[in-house]
Amino acid sequence: MLSSMMQRPLLISSLLEHAAHWHGDTEIVSRTVESGTDYQVHRYTYADALRRCKQLANAMSRLGVKRGERIGTLAWNGYRHFELYYGVSGMGAVIHTINPRLFPEQIAYIANHAEDQYLCFDLTFAPLVEKLAPSLPGVKGFIAMTDRAHMPAINVPNLLCYEDLLSAESDQLVWPAFDETTPSSLCYTSGTTGNPKGVMYSHRSTLIHTYGVMSPDAFCLSSRDVVLPVVPMFHVNAWGLPYVCAAAGAKMVMPGAALDGASLHRLFEEEGVTMSAGVPTVWMGLLNYVKSNNLKFSTFKETVIGGSACPPAMIESFERDFGVTVVHAWGMSEMSPLGTMCRLKAKHLKLSPTEQFAIKIKQGRAVFGVELKIVDGDGKALPHDGKAFGDLMVRGPWIVDQYFKEERSALRDGWFATGDVATIDADGFMQITDRSKDVIKSGGEWISSIDLENIAVAHPSVMEAGVIGVAHPKWDERPLLIVVKKQGAEISREEMLKFFEGKIAKWWMPDDVVFVDQLPHTATGKLLKTKMREEFKGYKLPTA
Amino acid sequence: MLSSMMQRPLLISSLLEHAAHWHGDTEIVSRTVESGTDYQVHRYTYADALRRCKQLANAMSRLGVKRGERIGTLAWNGYRHFELYYGVSGMGAVIHTINPRLFPEQIAYIANHAEDQYLCFDLTFAPLVEKLAPSLPGVKGFIAMTDRAHMPAINVPNLLCYEDLLSAESDQLVWPAFDETTPSSLCYTSGTTGNPKGVMYSHRSTLIHTYGVMSPDAFCLSSRDVVLPVVPMFHVNAWGLPYVCAAAGAKMVMPGAALDGASLHRLFEEEGVTMSAGVPTVWMGLLNYVKSNNLKFSTFKETVIGGSACPPAMIESFERDFGVTVVHAWGMSEMSPLGTMCRLKAKHLKLSPTEQFAIKIKQGRAVFGVELKIVDGDGKALPHDGKAFGDLMVRGPWIVDQYFKEERSALRDGWFATGDVATIDADGFMQITDRSKDVIKSGGEWISSIDLENIAVAHPSVMEAGVIGVAHPKWDERPLLIVVKKQGAEISREEMLKFFEGKIAKWWMPDDVVFVDQLPHTATGKLLKTKMREEFKGYKLPTA
Repeated sequence: MLSSMMQRPLLISSLLEHAAHWHGDTEIVSRTVESGTDYQVHRYTYADALRRCKQLANAMSRLGVKRGERIGTLAWNGYRHFELYYGVSGMGAVIHTINPRLFPEQIAYIANHAEDQYLCFDLTFAPLVEKLAPSLPGVKGFIAMTDRAHMPAINVPNLLCYEDLLSAESDQLVWPAFDETTPSSLCYTSGTTGNPKGVMYSHRSTLIHTYGVMSPDAFCLSSRDVVLPVVPMFHVNAWGLPYVCAAAGAKMVMPGAALDGASLHRLFEEEGVTMSAGVPTVWMGLLNYVKSNNLKFSTFKETVIGGSACPPAMIESFERDFGVTVVHAWGMSEMSPLGTMCRLKAKHLKLSPTEQFAIKIKQGRAVFGVELKIVDGDGKALPHDGKAFGDLMVRGPWIVDQYFKEERSALRDGWFATGDVATIDADGFMQITDRSKDVIKSGGEWISSIDLENIAVAHPSVMEAGVIGVAHPKWDERPLLIVVKKQGAEISREEMLKFFEGKIAKWWMPDDVVFVDQLPHTATGKLLKTKMREEFKGYKLPTA
Repeated sequence: MLSSMMQRPLLISSLLEHAAHWHGDTEIVSRTVESGTDYQVHRYTYADALRRCKQLANAMSRLGVKRGERIGTLAWNGYRHFELYYGVSGMGAVIHTINPRLFPEQIAYIANHAEDQYLCFDLTFAPLVEKLAPSLPGVKGFIAMTDRAHMPAINVPNLLCYEDLLSAESDQLVWPAFDETTPSSLCYTSGTTGNPKGVMYSHRSTLIHTYGVMSPDAFCLSSRDVVLPVVPMFHVNAWGLPYVCAAAGAKMVMPGAALDGASLHRLFEEEGVTMSAGVPTVWMGLLNYVKSNNLKFSTFKETVIGGSACPPAMIESFERDFGVTVVHAWGMSEMSPLGTMCRLKAKHLKLSPTEQFAIKIKQGRAVFGVELKIVDGDGKALPHDGKAFGDLMVRGPWIVDQYFKEERSALRDGWFATGDVATIDADGFMQITDRSKDVIKSGGEWISSIDLENIAVAHPSVMEAGVIGVAHPKWDERPLLIVVKKQGAEISREEMLKFFEGKIAKWWMPDDVVFVDQLPHTATGKLLKTKMREEFKGYKLPTA
């Protein structure tokens, strides 16, 4: 027996058609890359964007791009990147956004692994592209995302001009219809070990994710919003915002390469930004600039912060000093990326600010469409009591099954293991406790390295601290605390350990403390635990 | 080439699982049917509901109900009806909600056409069921939605007790997985001509519709909302609210049979209702009660009004007297039902209340997921200028393709003709002008019968007015105005026609006026234009 309903595929082209038809005069405003540090914006509407996306799709067809083929991008948040999102996916090809902050060898690996047919780039990355070109034998042409007047003088085979390609084409096109599980965009995870792995999103996963992100307990975006995505379009589709804004008919404001506090603040004010989203680092720069210049935000109401845990002080400052609500989000490239959002429930509205704050620092609740569970080492689900912590597993229509070109599913019993360890409280609020590989497994129980580090750095003499598990004959692993003292400060092993008393269960107490001059870090400033574990391999604990 | 994403079907069971896991203590509060006019509520949580839905699904399996088979309901908005929504659809069978306000012959036709296996009913409808039973040879049993103590003394074959069925079953069940296009629920349209036609919704259409209704420019429902659906669960799934509230984790408040002003107001106040939805008639009763008793609403913030156009005075009263925002919605059974919602855009926020009001009386903009167009007699799309009006056509994943058991698609070139005639303005706001079959086709141009009627009833001597098209040798059709005068009032043909001058284009002027004692109406109080056209068939116009 059949249902009565239309079998219409969920396609990305429908998002832009919706925006152009029902929000045709709503603007997309972009800081131009060509103007460099000069403040210049490009301004057009969703109706304009639709016409240019159709020109772009026609240009891609003329270049011989076929359904399913990948088009690489090395680009900032801007209107031409937006056009590539829709023009390329809309015609049935795949936009492959590449993170330009990766090492050139990684970029070459990724572009070759994806078999990118063309590589589109913002002028900022012209030198990088020139350097990469010899390692990219499969790329048929390099498209500079600019007009004829600004074409870069670089030596690459088949250098093409984006605006020339567009102006040669008609803006008439009926978007093709195809199966909604057709691949639409590709993003590689920046894995810390091994080669990057690709996540190939589909039209279906993108559209369902769009509805999820748009919903009131997630980003809550409407046609009354003005959205500035600080989070880059070169990584996980700027958390889906180029799709969600079109579905909502929200005005978009794109910062281009200018992510400094002064540039962002001016864009916020001149364009009436109501909502933004990004990682903590960028917000730090903006907050510092605004504070040190005694400025305010006139229209900015809410910001979504994710990527890594937001420092509580930043949440406080945004809310107390500027009246901007901070909403914590958590997700992964493998999750399109949205998993959880930390919005209060009805019952929390009566709590004091301090009590609300204790909730807001968590990563939040599952957005409808994401199933979430925490499991112990045997895969058994753990209770939602805010205490038990285990491997965080996820499932849903916008979550990865298998990585691009890999033959085996990445799943365990149908669930994707996030690599995070978390608690979930009785109200469903999830909090990341640790990375699975960093948690210390002691006598079958788990100890959070991050919890111990947070306590250690609260000591006035401690500048930085890292905790790793060290092999132990009886307990398998026991925690070793590695400390960098503040300049001129003194603290003994005993004083350090005494500082933990009363703050943790006794069996969580580090077995030893080592003082060092510095700790190893990743390129993005995170503790490099693999290196620390290597250095202290075979370390002899006093209790062993 | 495949995408990386999980192929998980969109299933209705996932909605309730989400609510039970992440909003387990959020309540569903129902005025009980058993208590009659006594104010008694039943109160439980989404977690409780999930357990009972699983018991119900197990009970249905034990009764032999198979995937795809239909279970009829004649019931108010209440927790047991909610359980039937999830228990029946969740196991893969189909809940067939029947409108108890239809004529018994229509109900029998519908239940037989749907081949309902069991018929579940609230106590209110026990006498109706007893009367219907002999005409329902295919129904294997009649399930009274009550406990043993309240079982009705009626003479029907195989009378079963809902609570007995549940208490015999385990609350353990893993919901079956199946294709998302599997039928889930069935609703018959109350067509004015011919037999009612069934619209068979699917799990897929229901879930995508749920995301659409939940979105900020539609109902904008979150876990902070308390929702009282006045709109009945026996027609078009209460506009999707039993699904949307679960997805959002919103508290539900169900009025049962008590739809009078006093009962509703008490429920609103005692349960802290923030949001409601219903047709204008019910709101009239509530507003009258609240005004005549000098009451207020403490928590009520917003109401969605649809079903028929909301009188402007009602919008004004809600907003001015009670601070309750009214949002116009438009949809149809064939559209799950949501098509458009009338929320202001960013640019409208600066307008004066009067200017905003002129927008708010329209039916609104397309929700993302619904494509909308107006076409002329040749199927050519008309401009969005707020003036041109034509047949309103819709398309999308939650819109009907073919009616239940009909062999042919109901579509015209892939679009569903709503039977409404509408304008769309430059901002995308749609306004219904007329029903397609009532519009007067004069010389290839269209005249709105509703516009002419609205002008006529504005005359102080006119109680009611109807306009129909009458055959004309030159213009095909010309408008005939049929008027019922107010008691004791006098007005001549010439005075009546003069009243139109300056208010309409000259060629819209009715060719004649007829005064009658009364006009024919449908059961729900609408003008019965078919009857009027019959009566005045062959009417000789003075200009003909």
